[in-house]
Amino acid sequence: MPRIHFHQQLAELKDKLLAMAALAQQALESAVDAYLQRDKGLCKYVKQNETAINTAERGLDEMAYELLAKEQPMAIDLRFILAVIKINGDLERIGDQSMGIARRTKEILALEEIELPVDFAAMGEYAGRMIRTAIQALLDGDARLADSVREMDDEIDRMNRRAHTDLLKLIEEKPQFTQQAMKGILVAKNLERIADHAANIATDVIFWIRGADVRHELSMSMD
Amino acid sequence: MPRIHFHQQLAELKDKLLAMAALAQQALESAVDAYLQRDKGLCKYVKQNETAINTAERGLDEMAYELLAKEQPMAIDLRFILAVIKINGDLERIGDQSMGIARRTKEILALEEIELPVDFAAMGEYAGRMIRTAIQALLDGDARLADSVREMDDEIDRMNRRAHTDLLKLIEEKPQFTQQAMKGILVAKNLERIADHAANIATDVIFWIRGADVRHELSMSMD
Repeated sequence: MPRIHFHQQLAELKDKLLAMAALAQQALESAVDAYLQRDKGLCKYVKQNETAINTAERGLDEMAYELLAKEQPMAIDLRFILAVIKINGDLERIGDQSMGIARRTKEILALEEIELPVDFAAMGEYAGRMIRTAIQALLDGDARLADSVREMDDEIDRMNRRAHTDLLKLIEEKPQFTQQAMKGILVAKNLERIADHAANIATDVIFWIRGADVRHELSMSMD
Repeated sequence: MPRIHFHQQLAELKDKLLAMAALAQQALESAVDAYLQRDKGLCKYVKQNETAINTAERGLDEMAYELLAKEQPMAIDLRFILAVIKINGDLERIGDQSMGIARRTKEILALEEIELPVDFAAMGEYAGRMIRTAIQALLDGDARLADSVREMDDEIDRMNRRAHTDLLKLIEEKPQFTQQAMKGILVAKNLERIADHAANIATDVIFWIRGADVRHELSMSMD
């Protein structure tokens, strides 16, 4: 099997991973918008998006396993393909968590609309930036960038804890809004889990790069 | 060929279109962020994203043409597949326009940083909402929603004209910033073109639905 063909396949694997990442990002953004705008249509969009994510995940996994089976890749490429498989799983679970937000949203539509003391938009944007940065670290083979994603995770943990505290306080003070506050706690938790998956992706990127020992020895150009 | 298999393929075609749309959205968002934050790394991301878009476009086209050739779909499904092929092309060109923004961004990195009197973030968000709404109209088979996208196009035309006027005025008043202003004019134009493609997508959705005569006669469940 000529080496150039293998590198074409690796490039295609990378393209498929980018499509998967784009779907996960869209799921997150649409879910947060759906929640903030109480938009039922957007909830449906998130659901359809999730089906697309599952299809994309299967396609990517199949390609990765075929590459492993047929090409017997060398150490660095092997670690790259293994990283892609793991990242693929994390992206799929970002889709799941986004579906969780969409489900919460559908539930709150039946409830009186109140404003919660949580900046969900900021949490969503932050989590989205973590996903994008983690994928960028993969594309650039940049371990330091991947490290920065893991550091970002602390901030969203703080945001989540604060949301939790503030919403429990709201329940104490205004028990009539208990249901809305509980949904808010779950949505904040979903967002925190999404950020966790982004941090996992960053860890996989580091596993791949560190396995390569030095960056410029990568046998594969990611450009 | 059993009908159920054909409907599975249509569902997969829809999933691939959603992945393509997600990539186009990510290209737009990353390009606008790259421009606003003068971020070279994000420019690279847009470029790699564009490669992924081209791969996804080919895959989608191949599947659509294969369906046309093998399945001889009936009128309403035929129109759906034709709409998908056209929408696919518009999404690919949204990727191209986003690359245009990334190229402008790389050029301005060499120039002195100045603030331009244009709300590029708002234009980008507006164009992004148009894309998402057009795709949602396709998924829901909702001609009225598609119509609303075409109406949104007027607003972004206005934003673009205003950007054009304000930036020409800036050049008159502060000719030392001519280059930055010219890049700004081009970026606004890229965003306006992206919105045009979203409006094209909406038109294709209407073509598909109107061809179906009445909505609930659709032979395919988009749920």
